[in-house]
Amino acid sequence: MGFFADLDARIAATDSVVSVGLDPDPRRLPPFLDGELPRWQFNRRVIDATHEHAACVKPNAAFYEDPDGWRALRETVAYAHGKGLPVVLDGKRGDVGHTARRYADLLADDGLGADAMTVTPYLGRDALEPYLSMPGKGLFVLCRTSNPGGADFQDLEVGNGKPLYEFVAQRAAEWNEHDNVGLVVSATAPAELEAVRNLVQLPFLVPGVGAQGGDAEAAVEYGLADGVGIVNSSRGIIFAGEGAETAEEYFSAVGTAAKRLKRRLNQYR
Amino acid sequence: MGFFADLDARIAATDSVVSVGLDPDPRRLPPFLDGELPRWQFNRRVIDATHEHAACVKPNAAFYEDPDGWRALRETVAYAHGKGLPVVLDGKRGDVGHTARRYADLLADDGLGADAMTVTPYLGRDALEPYLSMPGKGLFVLCRTSNPGGADFQDLEVGNGKPLYEFVAQRAAEWNEHDNVGLVVSATAPAELEAVRNLVQLPFLVPGVGAQGGDAEAAVEYGLADGVGIVNSSRGIIFAGEGAETAEEYFSAVGTAAKRLKRRLNQYR
Repeated sequence: MGFFADLDARIAATDSVVSVGLDPDPRRLPPFLDGELPRWQFNRRVIDATHEHAACVKPNAAFYEDPDGWRALRETVAYAHGKGLPVVLDGKRGDVGHTARRYADLLADDGLGADAMTVTPYLGRDALEPYLSMPGKGLFVLCRTSNPGGADFQDLEVGNGKPLYEFVAQRAAEWNEHDNVGLVVSATAPAELEAVRNLVQLPFLVPGVGAQGGDAEAAVEYGLADGVGIVNSSRGIIFAGEGAETAEEYFSAVGTAAKRLKRRLNQYR
Repeated sequence: MGFFADLDARIAATDSVVSVGLDPDPRRLPPFLDGELPRWQFNRRVIDATHEHAACVKPNAAFYEDPDGWRALRETVAYAHGKGLPVVLDGKRGDVGHTARRYADLLADDGLGADAMTVTPYLGRDALEPYLSMPGKGLFVLCRTSNPGGADFQDLEVGNGKPLYEFVAQRAAEWNEHDNVGLVVSATAPAELEAVRNLVQLPFLVPGVGAQGGDAEAAVEYGLADGVGIVNSSRGIIFAGEGAETAEEYFSAVGTAAKRLKRRLNQYR
C-alpha cells in the first residue's frame, strides 16, 4: 500500500477526512499535564480524544524544534501509528541534493518515520526527488497557502496568464509517477481551490477551516480526489478545551471539536 | 549592532568572506571523534580549525533533525559565539502566522539563538514578518538556488518578462526596512548572480563554490554589497580531511581548506 491508499482506507474506517493538526504551542498547553515532555503528554491525550474521528494527524515541525521537542515528536509518531493514524509531518521543507536526502530521513522508517510530509516547491523538482521515490510515502507540495501574503508570489502570472500556483499544481501532477503526490491548497482561498481542482486530480491537504475561518464546503467539494484528501484544523481542535478546569473536561472538549468538524465536513461529502 | 554590521566587522577582523557550512552528515564523520554527540564534537573541531579564516558558520538544519542533533546544534551555536563567529542557520524555513512566530524562536536569544536564518519566499511577506522585525537578527531569502531544478519555478517569467527570482529579489529589497535582509544566490548561476546584483544592493549568501563547482570570482564580484556578503563551502571544507589517519591530520586539512578558500576569494575582493 502507498500513503494515499492507506489514507483512503483510514477515511473509510473513521468516516472522516479530518486532519488533527498537532501544534502544541508551549504557551497554550493546559496546566494539568503530568510527566516529562509536556508536548508529548498533550499530543497523547489529543490523539486519545480524537483518533476515532481523524483521518490523520499533522504535527507541525515548528513546534518541535529543540531537543525535547524532537523526543516529543518521535513519541507522537509512534503513538499515532499505534492507533492506526497516518502522520503527515508539516515541515514545509525544501532543499537540494545531499540536504534533501537528509530531510527525507524524516520519512524513513529508521528516521522519524512520518508517512507524508509537506514540501515547498520553490527549489524545483530535484529538491523533491528524494521523497518522490520513497515507496509508500506521500508528499504534499505547497500550492496556494492560507496567509494574506500567499498572493505575493503564488498569484503572479507566469507563462500564458496562469498564476504560479496553478503552474506548480500542474508540475506536481506531472511528477506524480508513483501516486504519492498531493497539494496544499487553503480553504481560505475557495476560488483558487476550485481552480486547482479543475486542473489536477491530486488529493489536497486543505488547511484553514478552523481558527483561520476558511470555507468548509469548498474544502470538501474541491479538496478530495475520488474521496481522498484531508481537511485540517489545528488550534480549533487541540485548544478547544481552553477554560476547562480538569484534564477530563479539557480533552473531552477536544474530542467533541474533532467530532463536530467531522460531521460538518461530512455534510458535504 | 545588527547582524550585517556584526558580519561586516567579522569580515574585517578575519579578512575573510568564507562561510563554513556545518553539514555533519553522520555517514561521513571521521572515526576518531571522542565523547558524546559526534556531530557536536566534529563541529567543535571544525570551528577550532577554521574560525580564524571564517566570516561565519552556517549549520544546515537538515543535519540536526533529531533529539541528539538539536543538542549538537545548540552546543555548536554557543561554541561559535564563544569564538566570535556569527551563526547563519540554513533552515530554508517558511510558514505562516503562529507557526512563523515559532520558527522565529530559532533566532531568539532564549531559543536557539542563531544570528541569521535562510527562509523560503513562496509564502510571501507575512511569512517573513516575525524575522523581519527581530532587532539585530538577519535573514537570507532564497532567490536563485544552485540546483538544476532551481530553474523550474525561479526562472519563470512573471510580469514584464522578468524571471521570478528577480521579482523575489526586488520584493526582498522592499522589505529591508531594518537593514537585515539578504539573498541566497548561487555561484553555479553566475549570470543570474550578476543580474540580481544589478537590481539590488542587499548582501548575498552565495553557496555552490565548493563541491558544487561554482564560480568563485562571480561569487565575490557580485555577492558582496559594500564588501558585505558571504561565500559558503560546506563539504569542500569540513570533509577535506577524508583519508587522514589521525584527528590532527584530518582537522589540519580542514583548516587548510578554509584558508585556501579565503585566499582564493580574496584575490577578487
